[in-house]
Parts: sequence; C-alpha cells; structure tokens
Amino acid sequence: MREEFRADLHTVSQLLVDMAEAVRAAMRNATRALLAADRAAAEAVIARDAEIDSLYSQVEARVSDLLARQAPVATDLRTVVTALHVAADLERMGDLADHVAKTALRRHPSPAVPAELRPIFVSMAEVADGIANKIANVLSKPDADRAVELERDDDVMDQLHRNLFSTLLDDAWPYGVETAIDGALLGRFYERYADHAVNAGRHVHYLVTGEHPY
Amino acid sequence: MREEFRADLHTVSQLLVDMAEAVRAAMRNATRALLAADRAAAEAVIARDAEIDSLYSQVEARVSDLLARQAPVATDLRTVVTALHVAADLERMGDLADHVAKTALRRHPSPAVPAELRPIFVSMAEVADGIANKIANVLSKPDADRAVELERDDDVMDQLHRNLFSTLLDDAWPYGVETAIDGALLGRFYERYADHAVNAGRHVHYLVTGEHPY
Repeated sequence: MREEFRADLHTVSQLLVDMAEAVRAAMRNATRALLAADRAAAEAVIARDAEIDSLYSQVEARVSDLLARQAPVATDLRTVVTALHVAADLERMGDLADHVAKTALRRHPSPAVPAELRPIFVSMAEVADGIANKIANVLSKPDADRAVELERDDDVMDQLHRNLFSTLLDDAWPYGVETAIDGALLGRFYERYADHAVNAGRHVHYLVTGEHPY
Repeated sequence: MREEFRADLHTVSQLLVDMAEAVRAAMRNATRALLAADRAAAEAVIARDAEIDSLYSQVEARVSDLLARQAPVATDLRTVVTALHVAADLERMGDLADHVAKTALRRHPSPAVPAELRPIFVSMAEVADGIANKIANVLSKPDADRAVELERDDDVMDQLHRNLFSTLLDDAWPYGVETAIDGALLGRFYERYADHAVNAGRHVHYLVTGEHPY
C-alpha cells in the first residue's frame, strides 16, 4: 500500500514537473513572439496550450484516483491536495503565456512592443523565466528556502510593473492609446504569471514545512 | 459515517454559498465605488476581501479534514474535489472585485470611468451581478441546466468587452492614455470575474451530471 502510494505520488510529481517545464517553454516562446514579431513562435504557444490543459486534467484524474484508492491522511493527504493547487497555478501560467502570444499575433507583423518598452519587457521576461525555472526545480526537489526566494523575485517583477506604468503614463508617451493598452495588458500578463509562480512556491513551501511562509 | 459525511458536506456547501454571496456583494460595492466615485464603498470591498480569503481557508481546512476522516470515494470524492475548485474560482472573483475597488480609489474623487464608457460598465456590472447570483443559487440547489446558462451570460459579457475595446480604440477617443488603460484593465476585471463564475458553474455541472458540459 505504502509503496503504491509513493509510486502514484511520483507520477503526479512528474506530471507537475512536466507542466512547469511546459509553461516555462510557453512563456519563452511567447516572449520571442512578442519581441521578435515571430509568428511561428506565437502559433506554437497557442497550439501547445491544449497540451498544458491536458497535463492539468491528468493531474486531476491521478489525484482523484489516488484519493479514492489510497485514502491518504495527514502529510500524505496534504501532499496530494497541494498537488492540485500547484497544477491550477501552472495551468493559469500557461493561459497567460497564451495571452502574450495572442497579443503578439494580433499586431503581427508590427511589433506589439515599441522600442521604449523593450528593455522593460526583456527584464520582465527574464524574471518570469527565472521564476518558472525555480518552480520546476523546487517541484523536482522540494526545498523550502528556494520556495521562499520566489517571493523576492516577485518583488523585482512588481517594480518592473510599476516602471512600465510610469513610462506609459508619462506625458512624453508618443504611441497613442492602442499601444499603451497593449503595454498595460502585457505587463499584467507577466506580472500575473510571476504571481501564480509565487503561489505555487508557497504551496510547495507548505508541503515541505507544514507552515505557511507568510 | 454516512450521516457524518452528509453533515460535513453541508458545512462545506454552506461556506461556498457564503463565499458566492460575499463575492457578489463585493462586486456590487466595487461597481458603486467605480460609477459613483464612492470612497466608502471602495474601502468596504478592500476591507472585506480578507473575509473572503478566510472563507476560502475554511473550505480548504474542512475539505482536508473531511478527506482524512471519511476517505470518500466515487461521487462523494468528486463532490469534495469540486468544492475546492469552486472555492478557488470564488476567491479569484473576490480579488477581481478588489481590483475594481482599488482602481476607483486610485482615481478618487475623480471618476475612473468617463461618461462615454458608463453605459458599457453599467451593462458589464449587471451581467456580472446576474452571473454571481446564479452561482449562489446553483450552489444552494445544484441544477445542471442553470449551470449551463452561465455560458450564455458569459457570451454577453464577451460582447460588451469587445464593444469596450472598440470605444477605447476609436480615433475619436478624447480622454488620453491613462483613462484608456484604466478602462481596458477594468474591462478585463469584469470579464475575468464572469469567466471564473462560468468555470465554477462548469464544476457544479460536472458535480450534478458527472459529465463535462462542453
């Protein structure tokens, strides 16, 4: 029974790692689509969002099956419920990469991001990618300290988000309303992506330590 | 055992109904804050978001407790896992009402929504309120047909969202970038609120029928 539980849990964990890697790849491609007006990259993100949704369904099916067959309690139960939370956050991260890709596609072949905003989006994409990478690592090898680090990365993202709005709202903004709206929405997509990663990290921290980090 | 399970489940359901009513009230107040530049209404929404988060934590604690003590299987297990999904959607709806209230507050005492956009936001708020009301009803008395109706309400919201963007991107838009960005983000908050309600409805449909509606 115990061994069976471990094996089931390993399958669920592996699915979560696959999801984390998939949503990381999705945002990398979405960023390429955005900053290089790369249509193929955008289309790949949109096509692969269904794969991420399918991984999510597999996590849910496995977890329900595991709960029904093994009826775990205490720490085991906590682990299983946590897996559901993490999967939900990862699924949303995939959706947000999809939104970025769709924004790039809507403006294609023009770039959705004008020159003034490129450095901010390059930085936001770097932070997002680093956070997604940490989530994949933390899921492969749960580590409470690493999970808490994500919170600090998110502070950097929030600061970039504020800088973005300062630029958009500056009297010298030369690009008009549509580009400003795209910039604001894109900024929100990256910021939300990082938020969900931090949430996932919080769940992993709880899983490892039994305590909420903050 | 069976009776105890029913009693536990009833407690969870009641918490979900409380959450649905709270997020409905939150968006009503947030809309008042937005359209009447009502500072007290905005502050009430922000203060009460913690109550919604607390209800969410209570659902999670109750569900974990129920899983550990009762080890439900089959339909019972499905019911319990569905409750977690519904709670997560409701919690996000509360966050979105909070975002609307904060936008109203940031612009106070000026209105965040100019005259041209008022009719669209009045309609979006009506649709959002109707959807939130249906979710509360469906949770009190699960009903698969009613849950599917939500999808149609959401189509109305999506159309309003498109109308909003047409207005913001019209060459005749007279208000400049900041008001346009606020309009775009506010539109997204109402649209996401409805999306999460539809998601919750989908879970209730699955709960009642055992099938995904679409």
